[in-house]
Amino acid sequence: MTALTFALHPQLEADTTPVGDLPLSRVLLMNDANYPWLILVPRLPAMVELIDLEANAQNQLTAEIARASAALKALTACDKLNVAALGNMVPQLHVHVIARRKTDAAWPKPVWGVVAAKPYDDADRARLTGDLRGALQIAVPRD
Amino acid sequence: MTALTFALHPQLEADTTPVGDLPLSRVLLMNDANYPWLILVPRLPAMVELIDLEANAQNQLTAEIARASAALKALTACDKLNVAALGNMVPQLHVHVIARRKTDAAWPKPVWGVVAAKPYDDADRARLTGDLRGALQIAVPRD
Repeated sequence: MTALTFALHPQLEADTTPVGDLPLSRVLLMNDANYPWLILVPRLPAMVELIDLEANAQNQLTAEIARASAALKALTACDKLNVAALGNMVPQLHVHVIARRKTDAAWPKPVWGVVAAKPYDDADRARLTGDLRGALQIAVPRD
Repeated sequence: MTALTFALHPQLEADTTPVGDLPLSRVLLMNDANYPWLILVPRLPAMVELIDLEANAQNQLTAEIARASAALKALTACDKLNVAALGNMVPQLHVHVIARRKTDAAWPKPVWGVVAAKPYDDADRARLTGDLRGALQIAVPRD
């Protein structure tokens, strides 16, 4: 059965806090204080691979990845951005945009599976989410 | 000192076999028979992050990632594509496009640092490189 409407995968919902919506993508903050880590999920049904998107949606997603990258770079003292669409565990198309520091818990390895996620405390998460909305020029989600 | 002309990073040169050039990117085959694994390197000097590219070059790279993805999907029995720009070890901007199978050596983990690279034998590498040139509609590199 192929979904006809967009619904966020429950694993992504469980692991993240919503930041808001860009024109194509839902922007989520990963609940892992080890790294400032955004996930972009195009709000289209039944997308798995980047090449499942039509060319104009691929370009829009590219622009939104750039917007998320610039926001993270402006807000954090990051040394490197990591951008990845993997989806081996969660099939719904989603793109990781992660601010890496040479002092972070996994450097220089990729972040996946290296150290356990470190939940944010509520105040830190609220502040970062607010700062990200400002840097992304994104409205507060309604839900 | 900032480079004024493009030169492939020596680590990327050491780890790969050239497939050919797309309009923006040099296409390389990673010397690891565990996974059909391409690396795209935009032929512009001093690029580190995706957002170092101007918007039209970002769109061109997106189109070339799609072309590499479609070629790998057409040639391999892959279950998933993994696309990533990390660059924590090699700073020159490069994008991994990897065909993953549920039976491969690292599945479902990302490929980096999981199992040692398995070199191709010469015949397999020559055949895959030739097949990739066909699928990518790319000319044989002159060097």
